[in-house]
Amino acid sequence: MAQEDVFKKIVSHCKEYGFVFPSSEIYDGLGAVYDYGQNGVELKNNIKQYWWKAMTMLHENIVGIDSAIFMHPTIWKASGHVDAFNDPLIDNRDSKKRYRADVLIEDQIAKYDEKIQKEVEKARKRFGDSFDEAKYMETSERVKETKEKRDNLHARYAEAMQGPDLEALKQIILDEEIVDPISGTKNWTDVRQFNLMFATEMGASADASMKVYLRPETAQGIFVNYLNVQKTGRMKIPFGIAQIGKAFRNEIVARQFIFRMREFEQMEMQFFVAPGTELEWFPKWKETRMKWHQALGFGAENYRFHDHEKLAHYANAATDIEFKMPFGFKEVEGIHSRTNFDLSQHEKFSGKSIKYFDPQTNESYTPYVIETSIGVDRMFLSIMCHAFEEEKLENGETRTVLKLPAALAPVKCAVMPLVKKDGLPEKAREIIDQLKFHFNCQYDEKDSIGKRYRRQDAIGTPYCVTVDHDTLTDGKVTLRFRDTMEQERVNISDLNSIIEDKVSIASLLKKLQ
Amino acid sequence: MAQEDVFKKIVSHCKEYGFVFPSSEIYDGLGAVYDYGQNGVELKNNIKQYWWKAMTMLHENIVGIDSAIFMHPTIWKASGHVDAFNDPLIDNRDSKKRYRADVLIEDQIAKYDEKIQKEVEKARKRFGDSFDEAKYMETSERVKETKEKRDNLHARYAEAMQGPDLEALKQIILDEEIVDPISGTKNWTDVRQFNLMFATEMGASADASMKVYLRPETAQGIFVNYLNVQKTGRMKIPFGIAQIGKAFRNEIVARQFIFRMREFEQMEMQFFVAPGTELEWFPKWKETRMKWHQALGFGAENYRFHDHEKLAHYANAATDIEFKMPFGFKEVEGIHSRTNFDLSQHEKFSGKSIKYFDPQTNESYTPYVIETSIGVDRMFLSIMCHAFEEEKLENGETRTVLKLPAALAPVKCAVMPLVKKDGLPEKAREIIDQLKFHFNCQYDEKDSIGKRYRRQDAIGTPYCVTVDHDTLTDGKVTLRFRDTMEQERVNISDLNSIIEDKVSIASLLKKLQ
Repeated sequence: MAQEDVFKKIVSHCKEYGFVFPSSEIYDGLGAVYDYGQNGVELKNNIKQYWWKAMTMLHENIVGIDSAIFMHPTIWKASGHVDAFNDPLIDNRDSKKRYRADVLIEDQIAKYDEKIQKEVEKARKRFGDSFDEAKYMETSERVKETKEKRDNLHARYAEAMQGPDLEALKQIILDEEIVDPISGTKNWTDVRQFNLMFATEMGASADASMKVYLRPETAQGIFVNYLNVQKTGRMKIPFGIAQIGKAFRNEIVARQFIFRMREFEQMEMQFFVAPGTELEWFPKWKETRMKWHQALGFGAENYRFHDHEKLAHYANAATDIEFKMPFGFKEVEGIHSRTNFDLSQHEKFSGKSIKYFDPQTNESYTPYVIETSIGVDRMFLSIMCHAFEEEKLENGETRTVLKLPAALAPVKCAVMPLVKKDGLPEKAREIIDQLKFHFNCQYDEKDSIGKRYRRQDAIGTPYCVTVDHDTLTDGKVTLRFRDTMEQERVNISDLNSIIEDKVSIASLLKKLQ
Repeated sequence: MAQEDVFKKIVSHCKEYGFVFPSSEIYDGLGAVYDYGQNGVELKNNIKQYWWKAMTMLHENIVGIDSAIFMHPTIWKASGHVDAFNDPLIDNRDSKKRYRADVLIEDQIAKYDEKIQKEVEKARKRFGDSFDEAKYMETSERVKETKEKRDNLHARYAEAMQGPDLEALKQIILDEEIVDPISGTKNWTDVRQFNLMFATEMGASADASMKVYLRPETAQGIFVNYLNVQKTGRMKIPFGIAQIGKAFRNEIVARQFIFRMREFEQMEMQFFVAPGTELEWFPKWKETRMKWHQALGFGAENYRFHDHEKLAHYANAATDIEFKMPFGFKEVEGIHSRTNFDLSQHEKFSGKSIKYFDPQTNESYTPYVIETSIGVDRMFLSIMCHAFEEEKLENGETRTVLKLPAALAPVKCAVMPLVKKDGLPEKAREIIDQLKFHFNCQYDEKDSIGKRYRRQDAIGTPYCVTVDHDTLTDGKVTLRFRDTMEQERVNISDLNSIIEDKVSIASLLKKLQ
């Protein structure tokens, strides 16, 4: 099946089984905003717990915080977001539509690539088996000409995006004769910068109302609190602060389901180190974070590092952990050596000294920072994509199963009476009453056992427990495993420890030892 | 000590020990916004877990969701928030300050009360022991006159607030000659309505940008999703949907630390029932919720119900659970019978049928709703207030101790080597390495054991483990209990189960059986 179709299937599975709903659906939705349903919220909470506990419980020198979404507006001046967190936009006067100028130009570059590809295909048909693609690319005048145009455009574009130079961007659009896909005209306005932060007004006093922003990242909440945490928590460098929370970006082109949303959730950790030691810590954090991902058991071949060649002005090293999604390898986590840029900026803009006093060297300094940053929703999507399977069974049937890591599954155990009578439902509920304090259970008595198993497979429930007539006399139940579909008779009294052993977050954390 | 001073102590304790910091503190703060520090975030997360698990794991028919903060703007039309979620504001033209008109008038009413009180005190001094307050109140012309003025004012005010009638509110302010406390003048503007929702613009397309609100409550996210959850989760009425999340209100008068904030967190559950059965469910939920609060062990005498006499237009029953705070009994949870108001409104405004089909009666209907709603931050504050104790010890010293329920404590266990040498630190860390997968531990080797115990008392750590020289040979440690300060020698291998038994959320949940 084409990867696109697989992705579509996953998206509709998310909706059909209560993982992700389009937000405000009865009002025809709200662009690029989604709600997590009854199974989605459990999966998402489990991902967050896994990260939080791995960060704070397993590291003696990392603690958490939960800072507010609203922050003092000067913070975003200091961080550079007010001035530089922009997309270049252009309007077409005829269609009244607005576009990202950079996206229009990138689409144009892609058109040259397509054109070259078409020439190649044509030639391949013409020459048949004797066709030598590499040689053709080098000799065909038509291809050479298109390649040159493309490369020139790419160079101009790259240069214009430094800064960026808005007039140069517009000139490119005019020179390339790019037309609006809707109106078909070249009647463009100037390019202007559009800030991606959402703004609102806080307070109602005529003199005291203040323009505040919804934070576009959680990291700054850590930076402005780092000294409070260090002092009240008696932390010594190196130490880290972890945070999970919502962030907001007014993306012009939101896409790929929950991969890029306007309201999203981040899990960020800032690790404060002595100046000059940051490039020793950077590879350590790369390794630690990769181990965390791979402990989920999806296979090392689905992950890779992508080191950044072009670095942001505040960084001296940066890498992405990429995960194989149906639409290619995509970033799920960024690891950045952010130098002391943010803390220095806050020192400058707040006018307060926020230096760390190192009791070992008796020196004060502004710490350097290694950041690890995950988008929770992206992480959620990557897990759904890898867990989703349509399995051909021996009897020719297909079963849809979510092979979620047991510790992340929304429901840990479904308990089912074989029939709806003879005291079996009561017995099943008795078992739930024993398990429910420790993990999420579900009772199901409707339809055949086979159908009930399938329903649990579809939401990734690792264990099903079936109560039959023998249970009433021998105190045993049938335990059925999601992945192998094997079944085993076990004592009711052993259920708790058998299941707990596999489904607890602790079981996952132990893999990180 | 006066209750006000106790509250001030708690607020400063919150800051000093990493529970709550003023937001953006290095930028001199942001009004009525706070950040949770390293201990605060753990306590808050534990409260949320206790609620979430009690709702979803212990009730077969309640599931969770996590809907977005951004919702379609028409939702707030339907819910009544666009039209009716307002405060009446008035400006003084000289000071340029803005006030809540209702608060100005309420302050004026309070002034009459003070005046009466002063008269009484004067008379008490004049008449000495023979003073009869009740008789005086009935006979003094001056008191009678003031009381009459106050009662008239109160009646006018209550009438003007119906609607509300903005002109009538202004007329009261003029008639009572209320002056601006800053400028001292009566140069008032008209009263106008101020909506408490924060607004922002979503999207950048000239034609597609949309004014959206930050949700002022999480409940509507449940209402608009209820049918999606019901269908994909195969829920049957009665069933409930629980949600934890941020909400935002642009309060004019934010106060009492984290008790009333502009950005806050809610835990809400909407329970959908058949029409006509809601007043059977209402008392059941009152009881269930009260039990949840009292399981924390703070003593039943600190809780009371406050049934509402005046009901919101959409409700047919409502009560608050109030908790005794240093500033009086205050609402920590509301339980409301909201009828089918919200769902009917969404049906009307969305134009979609969102009726529930009842398979038992073969009828379709709009369910009635019982809501339970807690402010997380308020709950947090109420727990801090009750846990905080300054205890006189036998030796005359005072210890500050947070007697938090063990399952809610930020750190469950501190492990301390008696001295920083002889292999004791290594042994202590070995013990942490055994416990850390299951709960939050802290290592501390600095200062005397006594000081270290005090530090842990101050953040509410229920258990301290001390490693001494004997430990190396007998494999035993000293386990010290926070509340009793008693100590016991126990085997290292037993630590896990001894502590787990008391600190897990499951241990708290079992009290709800």
